[in-house]
Amino acid sequence: MSWQDAIKWDQDGLVAAVAQDAVSGRVLMVAWMNQTALEASLLEGRAVYWSRSRGRLWRKGEESGHVQRIRELRLDCDGDAILLRVEQLGGIACHTGRESCFYRVFDAGEWRETDEVLRDPAQIYSASKGEKSGE
Amino acid sequence: MSWQDAIKWDQDGLVAAVAQDAVSGRVLMVAWMNQTALEASLLEGRAVYWSRSRGRLWRKGEESGHVQRIRELRLDCDGDAILLRVEQLGGIACHTGRESCFYRVFDAGEWRETDEVLRDPAQIYSASKGEKSGE
Repeated sequence: MSWQDAIKWDQDGLVAAVAQDAVSGRVLMVAWMNQTALEASLLEGRAVYWSRSRGRLWRKGEESGHVQRIRELRLDCDGDAILLRVEQLGGIACHTGRESCFYRVFDAGEWRETDEVLRDPAQIYSASKGEKSGE
Repeated sequence: MSWQDAIKWDQDGLVAAVAQDAVSGRVLMVAWMNQTALEASLLEGRAVYWSRSRGRLWRKGEESGHVQRIRELRLDCDGDAILLRVEQLGGIACHTGRESCFYRVFDAGEWRETDEVLRDPAQIYSASKGEKSGE
């Protein structure tokens, strides 16, 4: 059985991909991969996702420079979710300039923003184009 | 704006839900929540998912006893993924008897099982019914 056979792609040919900082253990983001994205990630040693919103491969950090170098790649028991333990270049995964996309915590009936912006998105992205959220 | 308005349910009314052990930092599993599952999770303080395979709410640990007590609940920038930092009762999240569902690591072209089985699934589940993987 090849490694591809263990993966259960959904009806859109995707699996969920969770990126976790290999050093801090912080969960950085959830994105999606199709087979091409996963193969590119393995080949290039960096996180390559499938951007559903843009309908194309998304080499994380292609515009921001916030590349995710893959330290380890894991598959879950169902074969429909991937865990990437990554080195997050720049220490910023989120297009808002924060370390993690999970910067809002549920508190007393609302989502409270807890994490600080480490870098102004306007400085991360040029005016004419923005990686923004790949999703 | 209510907290519900920040959530972007997909075409099936679901969001991805990542459970992370609040102590070890280990990513335990990825599952799904619809609005009812999320509201039940908030109300009950334990992880309640939507089982796509069984088409019903899945109170994690309902048969195994491996309940996930919610310490913190976070939402990502897109509003389509939830992060649960949990206390994993029994120290086992996976229906295979392992701590995490992500027990296979990509190594030299194959998925190598790295994590030990902490408890025999036959001991966790009765013969006639099994929570198994909720997905």
